[in-house]
Amino acid sequence: MVDPNLEKVVHFERDRPDVQGDAHPKKLLRAIIEDGDHLTKLSAQHIYSADQFDRDTLLQLFRLAAKYEANPGRFATSLDGQILISAFYEPSTRTRLSFESAWHRLGGDIMSITDRSTTGIAKGESLRDVGEMFNNYGDCVVLRDTEESSVREMMGALRIPIINAGNGTDEHPTQALADLYTIFKWRPDLLTEERGQPLNLCIVGLPSKMRTVRSLLKLLCDFPECFGTVTIINDLTIEEMFCQDQLEQLTEAGLNIKTLDCLNDALPEADVVYINAISWEGDSFKQYGSVYHLDADSPLKENAIILHPLARGEELCTSLDSTPHNWYFSQARGAVFLRMALLTCLVQRAERVLDVI
Amino acid sequence: MVDPNLEKVVHFERDRPDVQGDAHPKKLLRAIIEDGDHLTKLSAQHIYSADQFDRDTLLQLFRLAAKYEANPGRFATSLDGQILISAFYEPSTRTRLSFESAWHRLGGDIMSITDRSTTGIAKGESLRDVGEMFNNYGDCVVLRDTEESSVREMMGALRIPIINAGNGTDEHPTQALADLYTIFKWRPDLLTEERGQPLNLCIVGLPSKMRTVRSLLKLLCDFPECFGTVTIINDLTIEEMFCQDQLEQLTEAGLNIKTLDCLNDALPEADVVYINAISWEGDSFKQYGSVYHLDADSPLKENAIILHPLARGEELCTSLDSTPHNWYFSQARGAVFLRMALLTCLVQRAERVLDVI
Amino acid sequence: MVDPNLEKVVHFERDRPDVQGDAHPKKLLRAIIEDGDHLTKLSAQHIYSADQFDRDTLLQLFRLAAKYEANPGRFATSLDGQILISAFYEPSTRTRLSFESAWHRLGGDIMSITDRSTTGIAKGESLRDVGEMFNNYGDCVVLRDTEESSVREMMGALRIPIINAGNGTDEHPTQALADLYTIFKWRPDLLTEERGQPLNLCIVGLPSKMRTVRSLLKLLCDFPECFGTVTIINDLTIEEMFCQDQLEQLTEAGLNIKTLDCLNDALPEADVVYINAISWEGDSFKQYGSVYHLDADSPLKENAIILHPLARGEELCTSLDSTPHNWYFSQARGAVFLRMALLTCLVQRAERVLDVI
Repeated sequence: MVDPNLEKVVHFERDRPDVQGDAHPKKLLRAIIEDGDHLTKLSAQHIYSADQFDRDTLLQLFRLAAKYEANPGRFATSLDGQILISAFYEPSTRTRLSFESAWHRLGGDIMSITDRSTTGIAKGESLRDVGEMFNNYGDCVVLRDTEESSVREMMGALRIPIINAGNGTDEHPTQALADLYTIFKWRPDLLTEERGQPLNLCIVGLPSKMRTVRSLLKLLCDFPECFGTVTIINDLTIEEMFCQDQLEQLTEAGLNIKTLDCLNDALPEADVVYINAISWEGDSFKQYGSVYHLDADSPLKENAIILHPLARGEELCTSLDSTPHNWYFSQARGAVFLRMALLTCLVQRAERVLDVI
Repeated sequence: MVDPNLEKVVHFERDRPDVQGDAHPKKLLRAIIEDGDHLTKLSAQHIYSADQFDRDTLLQLFRLAAKYEANPGRFATSLDGQILISAFYEPSTRTRLSFESAWHRLGGDIMSITDRSTTGIAKGESLRDVGEMFNNYGDCVVLRDTEESSVREMMGALRIPIINAGNGTDEHPTQALADLYTIFKWRPDLLTEERGQPLNLCIVGLPSKMRTVRSLLKLLCDFPECFGTVTIINDLTIEEMFCQDQLEQLTEAGLNIKTLDCLNDALPEADVVYINAISWEGDSFKQYGSVYHLDADSPLKENAIILHPLARGEELCTSLDSTPHNWYFSQARGAVFLRMALLTCLVQRAERVLDVI
Repeated sequence: MVDPNLEKVVHFERDRPDVQGDAHPKKLLRAIIEDGDHLTKLSAQHIYSADQFDRDTLLQLFRLAAKYEANPGRFATSLDGQILISAFYEPSTRTRLSFESAWHRLGGDIMSITDRSTTGIAKGESLRDVGEMFNNYGDCVVLRDTEESSVREMMGALRIPIINAGNGTDEHPTQALADLYTIFKWRPDLLTEERGQPLNLCIVGLPSKMRTVRSLLKLLCDFPECFGTVTIINDLTIEEMFCQDQLEQLTEAGLNIKTLDCLNDALPEADVVYINAISWEGDSFKQYGSVYHLDADSPLKENAIILHPLARGEELCTSLDSTPHNWYFSQARGAVFLRMALLTCLVQRAERVLDVI
């Protein structure tokens, strides 16, 4: 028989109440004055490491992302005639679709490589030669690979820009850009004279091994005045937690880094809780700290927000999805606009979207 | 030496004589009066089951498909700026390309997922989270999966429409829509006051296990006056042939269902012969009834037409391809236009193609 | 710490000195008078074998490719509304992206098949049925398969054009077109009354087994006056080197074919050195003659150019990349424009790009 609930089952709503932090980016637009000069350097740079961004460039990127988010349909032809080579030698759907969606939203064309074994690498081709090939076929490359050195080898031959979308356990710069963009969308006052209390940030992850965490910590170095304490939650020793010089870079930038092995002890003070308990290590996933777990009963501050680069496992319970703490869905949504902003600058199309050039 | 036949071998013709039933859809356009009101519900529904369609909506969908088929180039920008997520967790080329072609013909953009192992599911990600991700990246989803429950799990989180392109052995609604569209293109009189003889339909397949047959039978329930007898050809018992309540739904709708184990006994009375002897069951294909076979010597009625969702094996002999019985090629062709019509409605672009809104 | 070299590492240049033979195609444009009549036959032909081209058609194809290369952005909407089915049953990234880039540059849409196991072939579907399916979904097909007969079987059912992008060890016609285009871009005088010295061509490869070499030799037959000696470098006997009738076709066309087993003995006389030491044979790669090796110390003529269809292995040393001998990068770049020209003709859009129709 026909399921009597069928009509209800197949019905869906396009809108939803704004509990997931789809904060309108207008406030961020007002908090930053547009200055395209700081974006010009991006038109001759590969995007390899979070270290290559300075504060001014970051602010302009965030502003442009907010401009896209405030009015997505307005820029639908900005990447007219431009071809993206979307090369995911390490499997991914989330990050690949995030980039491809960003490129499509701006009117560009895409060629995807999703299987490393179909590439010349199986024939012993060098990554430099692959880069030289890409020079002839596209205008921009996005690359993810479990091999940490691949992106840098390819960069040596490229005359079009490449974005590192994750190189082994090293970095994932655009994820960090998206994460920081989300934080400033939530608290744009941090970028103005009216700056309220700096944020206490709590990070559940492993700085030495998780590329998303590594990149994010580097970006925090550009805004030390916005952050009070950055507490890393992990049960390892400090020597195991950080790579050589990694901790030093953070403290020299003026960040106040603490470590703690008990998440619930840190939560009552945390304004932003960043959790990522899955690490891709070469050829498999490792789950860190199944002991580290957030759910609706966690002792969160009332106004705390949670970030997670996703995909998530048991560490972030779905009971939090419908609470105001859920900014991880907004984080994924904003990542598309952040990538739109970055891609526009890389292929020298910023002049199509800025007010003053 | 150069093959003396080479010039002949490489030459091809674009047109072909109309023996394969590329009947111009004009008659169908005249048989149905346009009424866009019956299409509006499709702008807030996932397409999950053939059960969700009523007669009026079906007629308007068929009319819109015929409008597209009559003048394909006219609507080349209807899906401007829209992104389709084409997710084939169960391998397919035919259905995937049918949807992707439909979307391209209307000017939209596409992101394809063709390998389940590259998705977050390999990382333990829930289908609800995948759905939430899709909300941020695209405007419409098409999903095929061997797991029957996947589409429904994803529907729970989606705020963009999804089409079930085949969920295990359960349903394949758009294939059934294409099949019925083909039947009415062939006999548009069935929808008018001048209705001639109702059709005797002969189905070679297994209603309990074949998703194409399951969906088609449900749609027939909306047009009982068009069909005389529906004869299912199979060598199993009635209990094995139908799922619980399946037969009851059909007879309560007014269809006259018969079963027979000998195909050639049914053919002399059949106006439409539907054959599908391949079933995807979980992780492999099963060939049903290699004893069930149609070829140029089969005792078909002179004007009978044959439908097959394709791909075909030995059950449908190529000797029938050049006969007027061959409507299976037209069926595949029309499926693209039917999908164009459905997709247009789902993403709220019907007002761009209807005469009256 | 932040890598002090980071800024330098991430910086890149878009332009490069013209040592890699990005010779402006203007001279070739002037050397050939446009005559679109010779392109019309291409609008009703599959592209299967290098044998199907005559001299006049080749000249017009090269001229159109040069027109594209001289001003790539000018024709960005020529394939508006056209869909390419990019079917790589045999894995490839280089050739696939070359075709897809060409199609995107002209404004068309693409559907890719990169995994043979997702196709109906896994279900026992015939290639004719696949071709009939493609008729309904696209406007042009590009196919590569390890099975030599696949393209021809599909051709039997196609009513849209198909390009053989490599069928087993048989042919790869568009690669040969790209190779000869490169040679004439370098020496356009060969096509005029001022023809200078004919070229001595040295080919390292196996004519009986390498599809790129097989196709290239056939094209040379149309321009015997342009070539002095064609020396094949290989350590096999003549019977093993050539297929039946292959050598006869070449000598009957007026080519002067020699064989030699020592590359360095041939180099001092060679104007064009074509090297390809990798052959795809069914399901794996075979490296021919690791003894055959080109590097900066090879006894090359001062003005000799090197061609290689790529991907390369040890046979072509990177020390040659920055020398004027390197025309293999230009060859890859020009291949996109050559394919743009061919595809335009195949789908009957030549009238959009020719001066006189």
